[in-house]
Amino acid sequence: MSLAHRMCSVHRSFIREILKVTADPEIISFAGGLPSPNSFPTAAFSLAAQACLNEEGPKALQYSTTEGCPELRGFIAERLHKTRGLPIPANEILITTGSQQALDLLGKTLIDAGDIVLLERPGYLGAIQSFSLFEARFVTIPLDDDGPNLAALEEVLETNRVKMFYTVPNFQNPSGITHSLEKRRRTGELLSRYDLVLVEDDPYGDLRYKGEPMPPLRSFFTGCAVTLGSFSKITAPGLRLGYLSTTGDLLNACITAKQASDLHTPTLTQRILMRYLRDNDLDAHIATIRELYGPRRDLMVSCIKKYFPEDVSVTEPDGGMFLWARLPEQLSSLTLFEKAIEHKVAFVPGTPFYVDGGGKNTLRLNFSNADPEHIETGIKRLATCIREALSYTS
Amino acid sequence: MSLAHRMCSVHRSFIREILKVTADPEIISFAGGLPSPNSFPTAAFSLAAQACLNEEGPKALQYSTTEGCPELRGFIAERLHKTRGLPIPANEILITTGSQQALDLLGKTLIDAGDIVLLERPGYLGAIQSFSLFEARFVTIPLDDDGPNLAALEEVLETNRVKMFYTVPNFQNPSGITHSLEKRRRTGELLSRYDLVLVEDDPYGDLRYKGEPMPPLRSFFTGCAVTLGSFSKITAPGLRLGYLSTTGDLLNACITAKQASDLHTPTLTQRILMRYLRDNDLDAHIATIRELYGPRRDLMVSCIKKYFPEDVSVTEPDGGMFLWARLPEQLSSLTLFEKAIEHKVAFVPGTPFYVDGGGKNTLRLNFSNADPEHIETGIKRLATCIREALSYTS
Repeated sequence: MSLAHRMCSVHRSFIREILKVTADPEIISFAGGLPSPNSFPTAAFSLAAQACLNEEGPKALQYSTTEGCPELRGFIAERLHKTRGLPIPANEILITTGSQQALDLLGKTLIDAGDIVLLERPGYLGAIQSFSLFEARFVTIPLDDDGPNLAALEEVLETNRVKMFYTVPNFQNPSGITHSLEKRRRTGELLSRYDLVLVEDDPYGDLRYKGEPMPPLRSFFTGCAVTLGSFSKITAPGLRLGYLSTTGDLLNACITAKQASDLHTPTLTQRILMRYLRDNDLDAHIATIRELYGPRRDLMVSCIKKYFPEDVSVTEPDGGMFLWARLPEQLSSLTLFEKAIEHKVAFVPGTPFYVDGGGKNTLRLNFSNADPEHIETGIKRLATCIREALSYTS
Repeated sequence: MSLAHRMCSVHRSFIREILKVTADPEIISFAGGLPSPNSFPTAAFSLAAQACLNEEGPKALQYSTTEGCPELRGFIAERLHKTRGLPIPANEILITTGSQQALDLLGKTLIDAGDIVLLERPGYLGAIQSFSLFEARFVTIPLDDDGPNLAALEEVLETNRVKMFYTVPNFQNPSGITHSLEKRRRTGELLSRYDLVLVEDDPYGDLRYKGEPMPPLRSFFTGCAVTLGSFSKITAPGLRLGYLSTTGDLLNACITAKQASDLHTPTLTQRILMRYLRDNDLDAHIATIRELYGPRRDLMVSCIKKYFPEDVSVTEPDGGMFLWARLPEQLSSLTLFEKAIEHKVAFVPGTPFYVDGGGKNTLRLNFSNADPEHIETGIKRLATCIREALSYTS
């Protein structure tokens, strides 16, 4: 038995592997990408599940269409219009089993071995993993504080035949960086000059703690665009409910590929979510999540400023779930990780977010899933580890 | 924008497309592959969902491991041992988003473009679709009444380098055929002489109405085997819960591929099912499904014998959900389908189950999702259409 060639290019997620290391309850973990379980509308979901099964049970348990529950597609279309200004009809929404599946469908439908996929540097690990499986060739664009470096982007577009540009413009995972309005306009205009697919992934857009929402990059782009979204960060990730929006041949191909991939996303989770959305105010719920995470973000930033050595730089994101730290060049975050585990604190070393093995002195810190007391203690512990590491190298 | 090359070889499921035609409530449909909604344990699921969300809510709504809920994997391992005699440990079970996803994972991990996949003729459409997407080359083996034709199988194995043999030995979809014990033994021994992967799909094995259960084909095979199973036909398909069992490198590759495909199957559906399984007797529930479907199978067979012209042959399956009919050579089931829709009765024409466009005079009839009155009326209508078609051609 020999495996297919494509399996040579994909690796098990380093993050999911280190989550196993951090299962020790004494470890304060900033490693996961987990929403806080306190943010889940558990009681409301219990009521929604009862109502759904008692009133429409057989329908909620039967096979359903590949495209997804029509009411849920309608809800998403309306919401994309209201919150993102995107005039997308419901029949251009495809429900996916988490937005990870949307990445898989885009890989299936678009990527031939060797096709060039443009990523941000650092970039989202789930996308790297999905597109690797279809043997994409990655080219990366450095991220400035306000989004992609445009000179680098233009040079890459001029010298490569790019198939797809994958980007997370709001509070990116892992960096926390948000593209500025001006950057969106200029990036969109630049990309529009090339025949490529723009994939705009927006799982965190609703979790803004500072500043004003900005229009999607897609609104400045005239070519073939795909929007990805998810209910994982605004309701609960255990539902695995996401969506993909695009048009024409690509949409049709994604539906065909989805049929071959899992027939359809579970009817039950779709109908429970739809019932929850009908009987509850999603925006009010999102406001409670922002009230939970915003102060955690502020606290983590202020603790870092207070305890970390001055030559560690850190992003100060306007939303989302992650901070990104850059250690002095001579330090390795992978070595620091081992030390940190001994000190009962965890984070994600930055290298897996670089397709070229770069970022050895970077690391990602999650602030959404640790309570304030643990944030202060954990950052103090980490500061101790960093000072210790610096003392060996100076 | 151009689609990936692999999309040329995969088509939207003909069945899911014709299900749209048959949405007219006046049409008696034998077309779907739907379990009867009367077979769903709806009330028990409502209780399970409440218990699960009230008692372990946050856990049921959080991200979880790619491999699946440990208790559910344990339950499946025990059950495979008890009901199939397979000594499989829980850590060799991977939970999938329906067994359709297991087919996708096997395509991803095993099939390079042009690799030869051996199928039964007729074969399961979902497998044809999944493996097509990875550009498999199909070779088919005719099915005798008691399983694969061994002379044909041996010839194909001698003259081709086969990567995988995909088979549904119990009450196959679409034919309803079951491999005899002797056929299993001889097929397993023959396959063991070649370096191929045996994929044994068993969604219907528990739905036996006649005769004695038989050991899996896998138990006579010494090479790399994969067992696929599903809760769709014995609890409810809207959960999209299936599983894959294999070992070693292939299992690891499937876990990696699953991570890239949807991170994990929804935590909520897994935990609701687990709660249901803990608080209810699955075997007792399966017995009620058998009592529901068995008489429907008997009735459909007897109505066919009573009303169909003598030169239409039909399989008489010992279990499952489908009958397979063969019309006189000169008739086309696709033409008959159009006529049948006018007469308000539907079935699935057989051609999509043949990768080579064969089977023009065959058709599949589902007996699980029509009540007795509709079975008699529908078969009478279909008999009228067949007689009418014969009158034009004789």
